[in-house]
Amino acid sequence: MMGNQIRRFFYSVCLLASAALNIFLVRNVYLGDEWKKQKLSNWAEEAAAEAEAVALISCSGHGRAYLDGAVVDGKPVCECNTCYGGPDCSLFSPDCAADALRGDPLFLEPFWMQHAASSAVVVAGWHRMSYTFSDDSYISQELETHIRRAHAVARNAITKGKYFIFGGGSTQLLAAAVYALSMNLSSTAKVVAAAPAYPLYKTQTDFFQNTRFEYDGDASLFKNSSDTTANLIEFVTSPNNPDGNLREAVLQGPKVRAIYDHVYYWPHFTAIPAPANEDVMIFTMSKFTGHAGSRLGWAFVKDEDVYQKMQSYIEAAEIGISREAQLRALKLMKAILQADGREIFEYAYKKMSYRWRKLSDILVLSERFSIQEIPPLFCNFFERVRGPSPAYAWLKCERENDTNCNQVLRAANIIGRAGSAFNVEDRYARLSLLKTDDDFNLLLLRLGKLISEDIYTI
Amino acid sequence: MMGNQIRRFFYSVCLLASAALNIFLVRNVYLGDEWKKQKLSNWAEEAAAEAEAVALISCSGHGRAYLDGAVVDGKPVCECNTCYGGPDCSLFSPDCAADALRGDPLFLEPFWMQHAASSAVVVAGWHRMSYTFSDDSYISQELETHIRRAHAVARNAITKGKYFIFGGGSTQLLAAAVYALSMNLSSTAKVVAAAPAYPLYKTQTDFFQNTRFEYDGDASLFKNSSDTTANLIEFVTSPNNPDGNLREAVLQGPKVRAIYDHVYYWPHFTAIPAPANEDVMIFTMSKFTGHAGSRLGWAFVKDEDVYQKMQSYIEAAEIGISREAQLRALKLMKAILQADGREIFEYAYKKMSYRWRKLSDILVLSERFSIQEIPPLFCNFFERVRGPSPAYAWLKCERENDTNCNQVLRAANIIGRAGSAFNVEDRYARLSLLKTDDDFNLLLLRLGKLISEDIYTI
Repeated sequence: MMGNQIRRFFYSVCLLASAALNIFLVRNVYLGDEWKKQKLSNWAEEAAAEAEAVALISCSGHGRAYLDGAVVDGKPVCECNTCYGGPDCSLFSPDCAADALRGDPLFLEPFWMQHAASSAVVVAGWHRMSYTFSDDSYISQELETHIRRAHAVARNAITKGKYFIFGGGSTQLLAAAVYALSMNLSSTAKVVAAAPAYPLYKTQTDFFQNTRFEYDGDASLFKNSSDTTANLIEFVTSPNNPDGNLREAVLQGPKVRAIYDHVYYWPHFTAIPAPANEDVMIFTMSKFTGHAGSRLGWAFVKDEDVYQKMQSYIEAAEIGISREAQLRALKLMKAILQADGREIFEYAYKKMSYRWRKLSDILVLSERFSIQEIPPLFCNFFERVRGPSPAYAWLKCERENDTNCNQVLRAANIIGRAGSAFNVEDRYARLSLLKTDDDFNLLLLRLGKLISEDIYTI
Repeated sequence: MMGNQIRRFFYSVCLLASAALNIFLVRNVYLGDEWKKQKLSNWAEEAAAEAEAVALISCSGHGRAYLDGAVVDGKPVCECNTCYGGPDCSLFSPDCAADALRGDPLFLEPFWMQHAASSAVVVAGWHRMSYTFSDDSYISQELETHIRRAHAVARNAITKGKYFIFGGGSTQLLAAAVYALSMNLSSTAKVVAAAPAYPLYKTQTDFFQNTRFEYDGDASLFKNSSDTTANLIEFVTSPNNPDGNLREAVLQGPKVRAIYDHVYYWPHFTAIPAPANEDVMIFTMSKFTGHAGSRLGWAFVKDEDVYQKMQSYIEAAEIGISREAQLRALKLMKAILQADGREIFEYAYKKMSYRWRKLSDILVLSERFSIQEIPPLFCNFFERVRGPSPAYAWLKCERENDTNCNQVLRAANIIGRAGSAFNVEDRYARLSLLKTDDDFNLLLLRLGKLISEDIYTI
């Protein structure tokens, strides 16, 4: 009896010892395997860990640390939103100006933070070192395909049967198009844009001016011109920067060529009445995914000759566009096109229309200021009538004496952009609605204060 | 006695069970912790796994798959080196031409594959979406600092006290410098470069020609010019493309300005007699780390006014340079600067001087062809006299009848670049030595065949 008991105990012990050993061995083998993987293929783990560590640096929701930020005590510092400071961005500067100057599309930053896993990409040390892709082009075919798909989801452009080209942001493609459209003409082309117009058209065209083209101001002034022999190149910005209006070319005729700047033609900012189908259409990551820093724009071009000339421009300027920017854009497109691909448009529209409503709610109280009216319109993407969600508020100072609206704003500690930059009177000013939540909230606060003081004063 | 034994067994069992349980618990807690990390911060793991999976795709050592390559059966296909094909790049095409046309710096690809872990970088979805860095510039200060450090290690440039600017490859900076140096002059500047000269100087200057500057050919023709009132801008390429010679400006005088194209001024390609210390010096990732696809060049500029104007050029052209390219370049610089930072220079010099020796060994047998002579020279980096390791062979066809050297090469199934592209006679041709081992080996094979046939024929 006792002998049996001992045997039972003995077996139990053996079993347990064995089980323990099993666990030990399994673990060991498992780790051993891991170690092999480490040597063979885990070269990207360190980069992943490094990126994750930086993402965990807390900046109080008013900033973020970047992998390539300034390093203090061995780790990158927080880079704070405007008006926030301190090591963790927790200090608000009450007297700081509400900066609504630039069209920096940071309103989409939270979207990408929420889609961290699907949008992250590893650049290997040997990734695409060559000048060209394997088809001798400077363009990732995969990326082109995904961008065309994104347009198909947004229903904002007919891309079929059109050539595709990348540029350093839409900026470089605007210049490339002017060069291409002004080649082999009998006279210097006049480059024009209906006022109010995006200031870069003038500054860029002036900077690169040569005997083939020159900037000549407001397109409307050429509308009823008796001179039908002049070569004209019209920038058509639709929706327009600054006022968000959908536009058609002002000028028509055999000697008129149009460059459609459609960078804001996304459900984020406007109803899409119909897919755009122009001869030269320009888009950019900046106003679609919010990645202004990528400097990656694209154009759809109907005419092969114009396309070839634009390509020659990019090649003469810098051979091709960054492979890193293209790889990253592809990952962003893949993240966007997950499921039915509608999420980013719904997110962006919701956010921008919210901002517009908040702004309108404040401005409706004021007789001193007005903003542009954007009528509700049927949207091809949402398949319903939808309200406004523009990228900018185009503010007008209504008082006789307020001839410089931007100065009025500046006195209230708000930084806008003066109407004269857009080739109209300074009674107008542009306010960017594209920036961070912090920027927008401060803008609302300052505008609210300005308007309530006005009402109180009256 | 038996009671004691039972107790002993009992305790042993408890101990073992406990130990087993401990192991179990430790593992469980550990995994539990991992799981938490997964949710909080393991967003980059998927990207790492994806990149590693692509790197494991076997292309027989004659190609590689890229993350953004064409996808077949759910994974990116192999992109094969020239003359290799098939799904795994194992098929050699015996009749395929040896392509030595372009300066594609793929000779450094194996270096980066060997440094996979230290050179990989994760781009987060929200990485630097803004147009600007937090100091309102378009330039990563961290990257600038690391690039200056790399120059200090290479001892190839005095960067202190000089302004720094990025461009889309050296290409864009060449144009930016021409624009900057030709502003506010009394007459159209003549842009020149001593022959043989890099063809892009002419094609680019012609493309962007305006009333302020025009390309005017060989700098040497202006050397003893009686017209001392002409504004001249000289491209000085040192070491020179195509012939690898170290150069000084041909032209001197109060109306002459020089743009030093120092993209090959690294220990890879030349002895460094002394650190360069010119007013306008241009470098690029392409010929330093081998990343031509990044389109990231930089300039050091002594004069603030010239620097400002070059900056205006970049801003008018495309606002700034890709943040992805800058982030990746920073990671590459960090990898390079590990330990004493000398490894890449030693690797590159060893490889390029090996190629030069192999080529010389073949050409020494020939009376039909000659290549440039590059004398041994003391090198500031290696601190000793060192032999040649140029980026290109500058081939001369010595026979009276061989007036078109490139045609002679073409007949032997070798693709070079004709001398006339470099503004000299077609008796010369350039062969790129910068490409993959496969490219170089095929070039050697074809040249060897051509030369041995000549000898046999004679």
